[in-house]
Amino acid sequence: MSHITAGIITVGDELTSGDRVDTNSTWLSEQLLTLGIETAFHLALPDDRQAIADSIVESSKRVQVLLITGGLGPTEDDLTRQALADALGEDLVVDEPSHKWLRSRFEKRGLEMPRRNLQQVQRPTSASMILNALGTAPGLRASLNDAAIFVMPGVPGEMKSMWKRHVAEALGELTGTGAQRCLTTWIHSVSLAESKVGELLEDLMQRDAQPVVGTLVRDFIVSVRARAAGSGTEVEDLVVTAARTVKERLGIYAFGSDDDTLAGVVLRQLAAQGAMLVTAESCTGGLLGSMITEVPGASNVYLGGWVTYSNAFKAELLDVAPETIEQHGAVSGLTADQMAIGALTQSGASFAIAITGIAGPDGGTEAKPVGTVFIALAFIDEDGEPSSHVRRFVLPGNRDMIRQRAAITALAMLHFHLANDGILPEMLGEYRPRVEV
Amino acid sequence: MSHITAGIITVGDELTSGDRVDTNSTWLSEQLLTLGIETAFHLALPDDRQAIADSIVESSKRVQVLLITGGLGPTEDDLTRQALADALGEDLVVDEPSHKWLRSRFEKRGLEMPRRNLQQVQRPTSASMILNALGTAPGLRASLNDAAIFVMPGVPGEMKSMWKRHVAEALGELTGTGAQRCLTTWIHSVSLAESKVGELLEDLMQRDAQPVVGTLVRDFIVSVRARAAGSGTEVEDLVVTAARTVKERLGIYAFGSDDDTLAGVVLRQLAAQGAMLVTAESCTGGLLGSMITEVPGASNVYLGGWVTYSNAFKAELLDVAPETIEQHGAVSGLTADQMAIGALTQSGASFAIAITGIAGPDGGTEAKPVGTVFIALAFIDEDGEPSSHVRRFVLPGNRDMIRQRAAITALAMLHFHLANDGILPEMLGEYRPRVEV
Repeated sequence: MSHITAGIITVGDELTSGDRVDTNSTWLSEQLLTLGIETAFHLALPDDRQAIADSIVESSKRVQVLLITGGLGPTEDDLTRQALADALGEDLVVDEPSHKWLRSRFEKRGLEMPRRNLQQVQRPTSASMILNALGTAPGLRASLNDAAIFVMPGVPGEMKSMWKRHVAEALGELTGTGAQRCLTTWIHSVSLAESKVGELLEDLMQRDAQPVVGTLVRDFIVSVRARAAGSGTEVEDLVVTAARTVKERLGIYAFGSDDDTLAGVVLRQLAAQGAMLVTAESCTGGLLGSMITEVPGASNVYLGGWVTYSNAFKAELLDVAPETIEQHGAVSGLTADQMAIGALTQSGASFAIAITGIAGPDGGTEAKPVGTVFIALAFIDEDGEPSSHVRRFVLPGNRDMIRQRAAITALAMLHFHLANDGILPEMLGEYRPRVEV
Repeated sequence: MSHITAGIITVGDELTSGDRVDTNSTWLSEQLLTLGIETAFHLALPDDRQAIADSIVESSKRVQVLLITGGLGPTEDDLTRQALADALGEDLVVDEPSHKWLRSRFEKRGLEMPRRNLQQVQRPTSASMILNALGTAPGLRASLNDAAIFVMPGVPGEMKSMWKRHVAEALGELTGTGAQRCLTTWIHSVSLAESKVGELLEDLMQRDAQPVVGTLVRDFIVSVRARAAGSGTEVEDLVVTAARTVKERLGIYAFGSDDDTLAGVVLRQLAAQGAMLVTAESCTGGLLGSMITEVPGASNVYLGGWVTYSNAFKAELLDVAPETIEQHGAVSGLTADQMAIGALTQSGASFAIAITGIAGPDGGTEAKPVGTVFIALAFIDEDGEPSSHVRRFVLPGNRDMIRQRAAITALAMLHFHLANDGILPEMLGEYRPRVEV
């Protein structure tokens, strides 16, 4: 297997000053992977001729493919062209076919080509030009040390167009026609700590394992990625087998794969049994409803809900007993339970989820610190009676994270209930009172 | 003027594989600028111990400040800690205070610390630990060659919290008080097209103008930034004067500055007049309530609301007349109006916002294409009677963008009503039927 690696350099003051997020590198790395080429680094540099030239020279010794975007424009601070010439130890010359093309591009609109644009049709003597179908900045192709170098415009639309029309094909030729494929599969889990996932998959996550298995964490979702490169069908087998193993090991916590979202999976589960859902939210203030309705077609299983942010709304709209709030607090298991049962019985839905908690930054007490969240899942049991699970959590993070994690955990409770015959497993962030012995 | 430069290294396979866009570098560069420190490069690397170690050594000879994020987690592929030790030529030792802290963090939730988490409390011998207030990964501080090195977690929330609580201050001490200052002020506007903002501010946005004025757009919020660098008070004068001009030109559409959010500003306006708010949402499904309750202390002015996703809920919970839905549709001005009036009268609140629309991807018709959204703002008028504004919009974008923009536009309506004596200006995305002449 020929192991080709690439480096990506993006140029522009707007990147290193923090004014603009670099999305070109991300997009290019994704494209390179489909050609079986791994990215060794992304490097963003300001419009600094010396720094760009130095980095081109150094990079050309480390990678076989060097992609550069940005700094090809007509203004004073577009210096990538000169920097490439410096790196190659060459002068810039006007490329006559490009000059003619650019002049006629202006003439078609009845304009004379501005003097400043002349720099855009210059190239280092050994380099060749790449046509830009969308703008005035042609690209450049050159080679130095081990590396084939492609310079593209920084404007994402022009860069992508040039990649698709020219660079991808040129790289395909360079890497050979039997180019290897790279396949990726994702398995998503919820309510399991990243460290626990790491333990369960320790052998698969060894750095030299094939396929390469890694994790990505966001709130209480841990996504496991299995990726392999190679040619032929063995790549597919490798990835499929790894995904199956990951799924088995994560058990009930694995809820979906690839493009699945937790809300999407839960909605499919509900639809499969013709069930309808309602929500009753306090500290999340509508976030759970918003997550559910992000999914197109949510109206098939979601009737709607209540945002009972105030105690008055909890009592008036969901029949939470005022004594419950007085004696146990608005943030209590009993309040959550009554919110869920109230929402269930009022709506005639099959499931109701209620959330009440302390998202902070204020409002915490010693007994109920910030992050304390009670979640109730109400449903109709086998005897046709309303029943419920109520769980207490202490969720880590700031206000945003606590709210996000509360909504995710609520969806996870419903998912586990539906997928596991009404039995909930241990969940991440669950509160376990310490028993004094 | 001592010219201090920084380098930023972000670590993670997910970055160089194109699975995730690196936003940490952007954010950190912006923060560094406020301290007068320029960023010389952003470098993203895979989870490769050797590559990380090599880059730390090389970078430490080029910049005076080296910020590193990512790779501090508890799994096999979190290698930044080891790489830093390699770069320093040191071993890793367990940091006892951090070990104790992490153990007790688990114990508080009644859990034993997983074995895998032990690596998170290790540090190179000469390094010190930085407390993480939000997660299990403490940061690291070390020095090598010319550079002060700070390693922070890759999770943006944890990284930002650690920056604010520790790193910014440590850098302030390091760079000394006489450093050149860079001052940035933001003015935020809502419901005005970016091109319109560009027209209104054309002279200020020239490239050579001082201060430098630029815009950043997100959904229907256009934020204008004025930035100047220098020493002494003239920097402040420049920026303050520019901000005042921007605010005047944008008029009623300018709603706040710097850390202000639209929801935060609206909640302050409501609190100032002792008013209470309720919401009634269909296509946004709770997103508006969620935006409002993101703001700490929202409970002072927000009672709660209804997510009436189904027609049944609109009729049962908010007294929308079934004939209205039959004759005009669930997505109509009349339905929005009745939702808002129903929410207002039932709750006794001072203001009610209702949203109903077609977020897509399906459900559009020729008369009401995807993106059609009706928003009603109900309030008690001077005669003590319920009254309302109802507006029709056609919002561009995909499902997520339409929902986001609908919620933002609803908040903007309330903001304009409160700030402009009940008179709403022209708004972005408003539907203007073409009149046949």
